[in-house]
Parts: sequence; structure tokens; C-alpha cells
Amino acid sequence: MPPTGLIAVNTEDCERCSDDYEDEYEFHASVCVWTRYSDGTVKLRNSNIELMDQDILYHLALGSGSHDLQEMFGDVKFVCMGGAPKRMENFAHFIMSEIGYKLPAGTKLEDISAYSYRYSMYKVGPVLCVSHGMGTPSVSILLHELIKLMYHAKCQDPVFIRIGTCGGIGVEGGTVIITEEALDSHMRNAHEFTILGKTVLRPAKLDKKLARELKALASEDDPYDTIIGKTLCTNDFYEGQGRLDGAFCEFSEAEKMEYLEMLGSKGVVNIEMESTIFAALTYHAGIKAAVVCVALLNRLNGDQVNAPKEVMHEWQNRPQTLISRYICKTLAQKGQLKSLSRGSIKSPRRFKLVQQESQAHE
Amino acid sequence: MPPTGLIAVNTEDCERCSDDYEDEYEFHASVCVWTRYSDGTVKLRNSNIELMDQDILYHLALGSGSHDLQEMFGDVKFVCMGGAPKRMENFAHFIMSEIGYKLPAGTKLEDISAYSYRYSMYKVGPVLCVSHGMGTPSVSILLHELIKLMYHAKCQDPVFIRIGTCGGIGVEGGTVIITEEALDSHMRNAHEFTILGKTVLRPAKLDKKLARELKALASEDDPYDTIIGKTLCTNDFYEGQGRLDGAFCEFSEAEKMEYLEMLGSKGVVNIEMESTIFAALTYHAGIKAAVVCVALLNRLNGDQVNAPKEVMHEWQNRPQTLISRYICKTLAQKGQLKSLSRGSIKSPRRFKLVQQESQAHE
Repeated sequence: MPPTGLIAVNTEDCERCSDDYEDEYEFHASVCVWTRYSDGTVKLRNSNIELMDQDILYHLALGSGSHDLQEMFGDVKFVCMGGAPKRMENFAHFIMSEIGYKLPAGTKLEDISAYSYRYSMYKVGPVLCVSHGMGTPSVSILLHELIKLMYHAKCQDPVFIRIGTCGGIGVEGGTVIITEEALDSHMRNAHEFTILGKTVLRPAKLDKKLARELKALASEDDPYDTIIGKTLCTNDFYEGQGRLDGAFCEFSEAEKMEYLEMLGSKGVVNIEMESTIFAALTYHAGIKAAVVCVALLNRLNGDQVNAPKEVMHEWQNRPQTLISRYICKTLAQKGQLKSLSRGSIKSPRRFKLVQQESQAHE
Repeated sequence: MPPTGLIAVNTEDCERCSDDYEDEYEFHASVCVWTRYSDGTVKLRNSNIELMDQDILYHLALGSGSHDLQEMFGDVKFVCMGGAPKRMENFAHFIMSEIGYKLPAGTKLEDISAYSYRYSMYKVGPVLCVSHGMGTPSVSILLHELIKLMYHAKCQDPVFIRIGTCGGIGVEGGTVIITEEALDSHMRNAHEFTILGKTVLRPAKLDKKLARELKALASEDDPYDTIIGKTLCTNDFYEGQGRLDGAFCEFSEAEKMEYLEMLGSKGVVNIEMESTIFAALTYHAGIKAAVVCVALLNRLNGDQVNAPKEVMHEWQNRPQTLISRYICKTLAQKGQLKSLSRGSIKSPRRFKLVQQESQAHE
């Protein structure tokens, strides 16, 4: 049985990732010894799975006995997640256009997990776009099944990215925030699990190199800031985040402000509800991960989210744009960007004309 | 500021509910002193709300300034919740047929919260049907906003019911389980909140009289059992519920079985992921509440949910049937059942014929 904590392994022991992880010693240790086969495919830290006749990924409406998961998902390199199904559907169409991915003639994107009635999942070549719902338990179920999916599909070195929304602390609405460290409500850089009735703390570590890489992709021309900072993860949107406007409120405005200012003084720049579990489970699985959120408001100025819908919609595209730059850059580095495009539309202008002509004939 | 704990109030102090709650002394205390106006409408335990210009129920896509919430929701008596949007949409159509509620000509049910992209909400006369997602944080956000909705809409004595699925402990798949007490992972009949960084335990009490009333509505002719018992609420589906088939597993099968048997010995009959927050927030708001789930498997026999889709579908109707009996009975007692039906279809047989005729003419 693998240890639950970190183990010290000399990075030189592993040729494959000594370059990538030389400044991420602990992450390296977690990655190589327990979580990767020599070809970079995901190894599970649960020996029960390979002994099972079939593994049903119940909440994804997929199964290792019913689906050829390697054929379906073997090429996945990026797993992008966000709260709402609609946002992830939008992201799927956006990233399809960005990486120039062309679907075969006569096809459109389909929600792969529609029959689970739980999560929505869209696949755009090497990019998987999945909704995770709200709060850490919902993300927990999804991550268990996505990590198992990576294993069954023999995906090589997948990267998991959460694209979310958050409240900012001292930053304006519209700011893009890359999480450096995820903290729980008790300011621990960890997620607390209860397993067979016992409390287990697991480190909520994200890949710092990846965070810096993402930060470097912010453009000077972006009409907004992109920053790195600590993220507080709570189990509630109202009382848990010090809001005065929930169904209950048993603290004063002064106590609220004192709390938010304490958070700011410790480097917390935003609050959301998923980062610790996202960091803890991906780290435990040795999967490189990042959390990128856009602030919908500055909590030092208020509690209610009341920016106009169109403004918020534009704000929510900002983390997507950053992630798209990262995906395009990574694919281009590997020389994979051009090969994705199969090209069914020769001339966008003529394509549009044909559509209009066709509509006119009733 | 109201106290966070329970206070002793003589039931005779309150004529309105001394009958209803005479055997539920603590619940009575919670109900009357802080949470009800004299006409039975919901009082909020948060004085900030009435001072606000408008209250945006962000995750429901509703607002007190933009919508006439009293006009829209003032007649709501039953708020039924469940995890998946699709299940609650199905329940809305089912309960519409059961209570004989007729929509005005040329209308159909609409997802009231569609633009939130978070929860789905359907209204069928006095019954509100809302999806709550998975896990306690997702339920927490929804309950804060639903409790505020009850307040803005001036709903009188609403009852909140969760209709869910669960794993059974020593009970067969298909068994309907009414929760007597919701326990957290540390076997406490409470939910742990973190508010401004401080830990707050709130009792996770459900209305025992309502639970008995629901149990009494199980029919001898039902081809399945309906039982009352304790429910364990966890923050995870895999490790948190002692499953061997998650992405990680750091305990043995023997340790798992020992844990599940310990649960059984303490009266736990099922495990799910929402009951403590549901009980704690409704109790804190003085709202009568119940949790009714169907077991999808007996966890003493395994971990994977693999009953055929059609069987599971039929099982998931069972808690809905029980709740429908309760709603019909309650409405009938108040003489409100007949008044709901406005009757647009005179003859179902002829209605069908007209539809078929119409389809035939192209």
C-alpha cells in the first residue's frame, strides 16, 4: 500500500521528469513513484480496480466493460473543469475554435455524460471539458471517476485545470486569479477527509511551475489584471464566506470586515468552494493541476454579485482565454496543433452564403 | 441577535403550534420564537435582509427587486428537492398529475432558474420542485436562497422535503428509507459549519412527527419496504463511504466491513451526502423537514451501483410516490385538492384521438 504522506525521492532517480520537476521536489516524489508507469500513463493508487471485472464510472455514465475507454479518451491531454454545465459546453465550443479542431462532417458535440444526469462532459480532441457542480463533495466524486478514466484510457501525463468564478479580496471584479496555494476554512494548505470515521489531512498542493507558466501567458494588452495568490476554499457561499446576506447571519459587519482583512493580510486574494479538494486529489494522484478563477466582485466592497449579466459573461471568458493560450502553446510545442484541423470549411464567407441561401428556400 | 442554540420555551406560550408540536418540544422552541410571524409566514434570522434595497437570489436567477416573489411563490406549501435536475423535472410532472393540477391553456412547465445555470426549479401550484446538486455545500447555497425566498414570498408554514438516493446498510436495493436522525462522518447528529474561521456545530434535527406521518403512508400493498432509521451523511462517495473502488483506497476490505457493521450496529440504515446540512439549516430556520431516499444497493454486499437502468428508474419513483401521498393527503385535509384542477381536458380518450388526427395531417 502506498504511503499517504510524501516520500523523499531523489529527482535523479527518474529521467523522465527530472527536468520538469527539478524545482518541484515534493511533487516529483508524488508523481513518479506511485502514480506513473514508465510511459507516462496514469497508475492508480488502488490495486482493487485492476482486479475488478468491470469498473462502472457511475456518475459519468461510462464503464470499463461497456465502453472502449482507451479508444474514446486515450488522446486526452487536458481535462478542464468548471461548475456549470452550460459554461463547460461554451468552453468546449470556444476551445474547438481556438485549437482549430474540426469535427467530422455531419457531427456536432454531444454531452458524453448526459445519461448520468449529474455532470456534463464534452470532448474536443485532446481537451476534455467537464462540469463539476458546486462544492468540494461534488468535485470529489467527479475527480475519483476522472482519475480512474485517465487510468482506463491510458492517458499520458494529463493536466487538470479548474476554470471557475470567485469572490476577490482586495481585487476588482474581472481580475483573473491563478491559485498558488489552496487553503481550507482553518487556513490549512490541506483538505480534510474523513475515511472510515478517521480524519485524514492531505496536502492541497498545486503545481507552482504550471501556475507561473499560466501567469506568463497573461498579455500586457489584456484590459484586466492576471495575478497569482492564495485561495480560500469554503463549504458555504453565505456564512462560510462571511456574507451578511444569507438566510442567517450571526456576526456583525465589523466582525466580517475584520475576518476578510485577516484573510487579505495572509495573502488570500480570493474565495471559492472547490480548490482544496481539486488540489488534494490531483496531487495525491500525481496529476499536474491548476485553478484559474475570475473574481465576480471585490468582497471588501460588498456581498451581492450584481454586475450586469453581459459584463459577468465577458468576465467568465477571461480564465477560458488564458487556458486556451496554454493549451495552444503546449500543443504547438509538441507540433500537434496543425494536425488537429481537418478542414471542412474552405471559405467561411461562401459557407455563410450557402447557409443563407439554404434558409431562404422554404 | 437570536441565540444559535436551542432555548426552552413552554409550548403553552404559543397557541398556534401547541397542538402540532407538543411532542416536539425543542423543535417548537425553534419554530416559534425566532422564525415565524403570527400568521405563520417565515421570519428570517437575519435582520440585514430587510434593510437591503433588493436581495438577489443569485443561484436561483430571482431577485426581490426584479420579481414579485409573493405573487409568484406566495402559495407554495411544499418544497421538494433532489439531486439531479432531470429527476426534479420528472417529479414536477408526476406531482402535477397526482394532485390533478392543470396548467392554463397553451402553457407548459418552465425551469424558473434556467438562467442561473446552477439549479433547476419547477412550480406546480403549491409544490416547488428544485434540484440541489450533490453534496452539502451545494445544498447549503440552495437552502439559504430558498429560505430567503420563503420569507420574501410570505409563504405560510412551508414544509421542505429531500427526495434522494442512497446506499443501504443491511437493507436491499429498492427499500425506501425515511431519515430519523442525520449523522455526520463523526457520528454526530449535527452539521459542522465554519463561520469567520470558527467551528460552529448546529443540530441536524428533522421533524420526527413528520417522519412518522410519512411512514404511516407506506401501503401494505407496496412491493417494497419503507423504513425509518438513522442516515450517515458524508462528504465523498468513495473513500468517505468506505468504498473499495475509488481512485484511491488505503484500507482493506476487512476494515471496510468492520466500519459498515459498526454503522449498522448504531442504527444507521443508509448513507448519502446531503442530510445533515438539509436538517441543520431547515431546523435553524424552524422549517419542518424530512429526508426520504431509496437505497440503490445494499453496501454490505458491494460498492458498485449496477442494477439495470429500468430497475433503478422504478426504484427512484418510490420516494416520489410516498411524498405524493403526503402532499395529496395534506391538501385534501385542507380542502385544497379539488380547487387546483381547472380541467382543460374533458375526455382523455378523445383528446388522444384529436392529437393523432392532427399528426396525420401533414
